[in-house]
Amino acid sequence: MTFHSHILKNGLQLIGETSPSARSVALGFFVRTGARDETGDVSGVTHFLEHMVFKGTPRRSALDVNRDFDKIGAHYNAFTSEENTVFYAAILPEYIPQAVDILADILRPSLRVDDFEMEKNVIIEEIGMYEDQPTWSAYDHAKRAYFADHPLGNSILGTPEGIRALGRDQMHAYFERRYVAPNITAVAAGNFDWERFVAIIEEQCGAWNAGLVGRQGVRETKGSGKFEVVTRSKVAQEHVFLISPGPPVESPLRYAADTLALALGDDSGSRLYWALVDPGLADAADASFHDYEGTGSFYTSFSCEPGRTQENLAIVLNLLHDVQKEGITEKELQQAKSKIGSRVVRGSERPMGRMQAIGMAWTYLHQYRSVDDDLKSFDAVTLESIRQVLDRYPIDGVTTLALGPLEKLSLPPSNGRK
Amino acid sequence: MTFHSHILKNGLQLIGETSPSARSVALGFFVRTGARDETGDVSGVTHFLEHMVFKGTPRRSALDVNRDFDKIGAHYNAFTSEENTVFYAAILPEYIPQAVDILADILRPSLRVDDFEMEKNVIIEEIGMYEDQPTWSAYDHAKRAYFADHPLGNSILGTPEGIRALGRDQMHAYFERRYVAPNITAVAAGNFDWERFVAIIEEQCGAWNAGLVGRQGVRETKGSGKFEVVTRSKVAQEHVFLISPGPPVESPLRYAADTLALALGDDSGSRLYWALVDPGLADAADASFHDYEGTGSFYTSFSCEPGRTQENLAIVLNLLHDVQKEGITEKELQQAKSKIGSRVVRGSERPMGRMQAIGMAWTYLHQYRSVDDDLKSFDAVTLESIRQVLDRYPIDGVTTLALGPLEKLSLPPSNGRK
Repeated sequence: MTFHSHILKNGLQLIGETSPSARSVALGFFVRTGARDETGDVSGVTHFLEHMVFKGTPRRSALDVNRDFDKIGAHYNAFTSEENTVFYAAILPEYIPQAVDILADILRPSLRVDDFEMEKNVIIEEIGMYEDQPTWSAYDHAKRAYFADHPLGNSILGTPEGIRALGRDQMHAYFERRYVAPNITAVAAGNFDWERFVAIIEEQCGAWNAGLVGRQGVRETKGSGKFEVVTRSKVAQEHVFLISPGPPVESPLRYAADTLALALGDDSGSRLYWALVDPGLADAADASFHDYEGTGSFYTSFSCEPGRTQENLAIVLNLLHDVQKEGITEKELQQAKSKIGSRVVRGSERPMGRMQAIGMAWTYLHQYRSVDDDLKSFDAVTLESIRQVLDRYPIDGVTTLALGPLEKLSLPPSNGRK
Repeated sequence: MTFHSHILKNGLQLIGETSPSARSVALGFFVRTGARDETGDVSGVTHFLEHMVFKGTPRRSALDVNRDFDKIGAHYNAFTSEENTVFYAAILPEYIPQAVDILADILRPSLRVDDFEMEKNVIIEEIGMYEDQPTWSAYDHAKRAYFADHPLGNSILGTPEGIRALGRDQMHAYFERRYVAPNITAVAAGNFDWERFVAIIEEQCGAWNAGLVGRQGVRETKGSGKFEVVTRSKVAQEHVFLISPGPPVESPLRYAADTLALALGDDSGSRLYWALVDPGLADAADASFHDYEGTGSFYTSFSCEPGRTQENLAIVLNLLHDVQKEGITEKELQQAKSKIGSRVVRGSERPMGRMQAIGMAWTYLHQYRSVDDDLKSFDAVTLESIRQVLDRYPIDGVTTLALGPLEKLSLPPSNGRK
């Protein structure tokens, strides 16, 4: 595998990893904009704009976009997160010109007023659909409780009222500001010719507006420390999230943080699994680490019969205190490292996996990281580096949110400390 | 990629595709036994046995199985279909000996009575969970209506009553008869050493019982032609399946049949999509082709607001009559071929995809089929071969089942013929 990078005059970045043994190619456009870049009056606009990108351009109707992707057998989609909006397609190598033509074209959308008004209903339905999923809803509420007034607490989907009130021109202004060339990276991975890729992107995107870009409010947070209960009588199980601080994406400690989360809460064979799931006290339990620009966080969660929540919460808080005090064992570390190694390798076996990995590494760090770079970073994690994570980011310094039928839940005595 | 095969003295077959550019390896044990091989008194035993395989052996408790897979970071699971029970794991190459040791060991399970009785509850819960999914439930009912007394109509999960009545010794007798060495193929794909793989399998599985194997009731069926309505007042949408006959897995026409199904009912840009989903008449519509030993079938389905069902059914029947009479267009054929090419290639990029593909080809046909073999077979599909499929297996010769709130639904006038 060989890495390549280039930058157009207007500031658009191109990166690629060519892999002659691959038989397909994955293409992506990474726009460095997400919910955290929204002001309150346009909450949800990033995600809504992601939808509108597929609604057509001066050259293509929404139907044409669908049909043109279909003609080349593309597997295509997009997603919006707190920090990124990514559009991608996986195709056979011979269709690169057509795929870039479609992707580049739709990234300059018409944003027609009637499409915009029609699509509002789709967005509002999507908001309802997510709200009906208790795990997602608990996660979303917990994130807002933890981040409070930090921009990472911004809702990705927005509210039905906010979406209804949003005007097409507000979206257009946001687009003009955030979808400028220097804020976009075109990424390719798999079997393709780099020089040709550069030439096609140059031709398709060379005239895109340059512009100043940046991100406000990049700062660390340790979370609000709140304890909240959201009552939803129609939900059967109680869903609990505990969020604690962690290193930001720029920190070399993020590999140790990932490993710690896996030892703590992988869906099989982790501390949480043995404490809650194996003995049947909870249906599910999980811990994961998310790194953002400027800050990071650990998400520890479980769902259970409502009557078991109080007891399970005490178990989890004790477990987090134990880990904070004693760390994890060498055996847990080795097992977590085996799992991570296997996941990194398996995740890298498709061009789609590599495209996402190199795109993210470039967007955040302006670095190329090969599969071996990642494996080495994880391999270098020690009990000491996990200790450093814990010392700097106490994992028992939690913000807690429960969502489900319960009307009351108490913080366990002395905050669960044994 | 290089193909290898071998057979042990007891009849166990080994196949492998080595791929030096891969970084992981996928292992599978394909047991050629499924719901179609069950007699009525042990309905559901194949799937239940798949669960029991993970419950331990003389050397390992259920906990050990979980822990030992976990130690090597394995991604592992199993599934049961009408015709096969497959156990698999994806791992890093250095863990092949451990992974084979676990997989081979669990394939000689203890079937302890107390584990057996405990696991019944899990199976019964799983039956309930699937019954709560209306799409799956409609599919299952439709399959039973179509196949009637053909063994492919056997339920994979069985019924709660049947599972409760099942005895441990009945399962053991089934195991002894069906899990014999000649009925099993050990499959590996990815980065591994073939000679070492053969040596490890020989050591682990060389003492497994040989035995006579076979499959009864392998015959073609064109389906019952029934028209059934299953009323479920708590389900919101109406779910309709239309099943028609198709070529068996042994037939060279199966590539044309797959292509036809895609042109007819892919989830974007197909006949059904433009007729039902794009205009908003149905939430979802799909067509797919399944090939079995001895027979095959096309599954055409849609779900919609109950009030629209009658009208949509007429549309779909007309569409099937049109296709039966006129076939598909050259443009539809080309588009379906692009999509299939892209899917075959993308599906082959991971060792897990190749392991499944070569395992299935070997189990059914005793043939090695490379990715290029599959691509060539699809590339050779013409409007003429699709015509041959239709002439031999009329796609409008349907068995119909609707599941949802409707109490009545009529077969459209002259069976929907224009």
